[in-house]
Amino acid sequence: MNYYEKTEKENTIYTGRIIKVKELNVSLPNGKSTKREIVEHPGAVAILAVTSDKKIVLIKQFRKAVEEKLWEIPAGKLERGESPLACAQRELKEETGYISDCWQKLEEFYASPGFSNEIIHLFLAKNIYAAGSTNFDEDEYMEVYLLSMEEIEKLLREGKIRDAKTLTAILTEKTREE
Amino acid sequence: MNYYEKTEKENTIYTGRIIKVKELNVSLPNGKSTKREIVEHPGAVAILAVTSDKKIVLIKQFRKAVEEKLWEIPAGKLERGESPLACAQRELKEETGYISDCWQKLEEFYASPGFSNEIIHLFLAKNIYAAGSTNFDEDEYMEVYLLSMEEIEKLLREGKIRDAKTLTAILTEKTREE
Repeated sequence: MNYYEKTEKENTIYTGRIIKVKELNVSLPNGKSTKREIVEHPGAVAILAVTSDKKIVLIKQFRKAVEEKLWEIPAGKLERGESPLACAQRELKEETGYISDCWQKLEEFYASPGFSNEIIHLFLAKNIYAAGSTNFDEDEYMEVYLLSMEEIEKLLREGKIRDAKTLTAILTEKTREE
Repeated sequence: MNYYEKTEKENTIYTGRIIKVKELNVSLPNGKSTKREIVEHPGAVAILAVTSDKKIVLIKQFRKAVEEKLWEIPAGKLERGESPLACAQRELKEETGYISDCWQKLEEFYASPGFSNEIIHLFLAKNIYAAGSTNFDEDEYMEVYLLSMEEIEKLLREGKIRDAKTLTAILTEKTREE
């Protein structure tokens, strides 16, 4: 069945610096209608960054939305008109000081498609090397670590990696390696 | 450094049926302040449901937020006061008609902690069996499939699985198996 929900009415509730919130009235194939609450997001990149001796970059970062510090791979939001690859290269340099000459797109996925259109473009950056200082945004603060896959697997077993894109990236790398 | 962002002011922008949107003024450790846009979400469960002959349940479902049909594992939002396990058992039955006597929590993770507190509790349901009809919500429509890991790996290679929780679940199962 070619199920589809047609937008009958669109109401923009909120236009923030990053997100936009809309309430949609949609009609369903059975003739009924319902409301959908949608968060529009500019999209993001995330980077699995690996040194020549197979260490992986993880960041520890406070996230206000969950009031916790999380282990994450480097990531950031797309700026208007920016390509995902350019964004990934910029964010890796800004957040960690590392650059790479060897970039590969691994996959792209939706973070939470039940209510948000946020897409995450996941890249692999191989043979990364230090290239000068980091350059955080003024309202960002992060600790940068280089960890072996064994150290990361320990964090995984202890349930300490709790960010979906980071889990996806690490499990992708683990299955790619084997 | 024990970086923390203190909430100075909280402004509720929108209270929907599912999400709540807030704008926070926070003070940073450097004395400056900034705004955070936060989407509160009730949390969700997702279920990696496997038959005794190792077939995995995938659902194909239209998602208005991304205007596409996506391949996903069964999932659903927590109701008020509901435990994650009870929610997972309810959602699996409602969405697929399957039940299981063998449940295991695999992990929990945040879908998009940069702006949302949505947490996803991922369960493994083994030896699932059919137990009567499905019972979708009136505004849900989904196609239910049983696929082998080989068939799912083909979808993965083709880039057809584009939902973060589903990628995480499948890659977890794949690494668990090996």
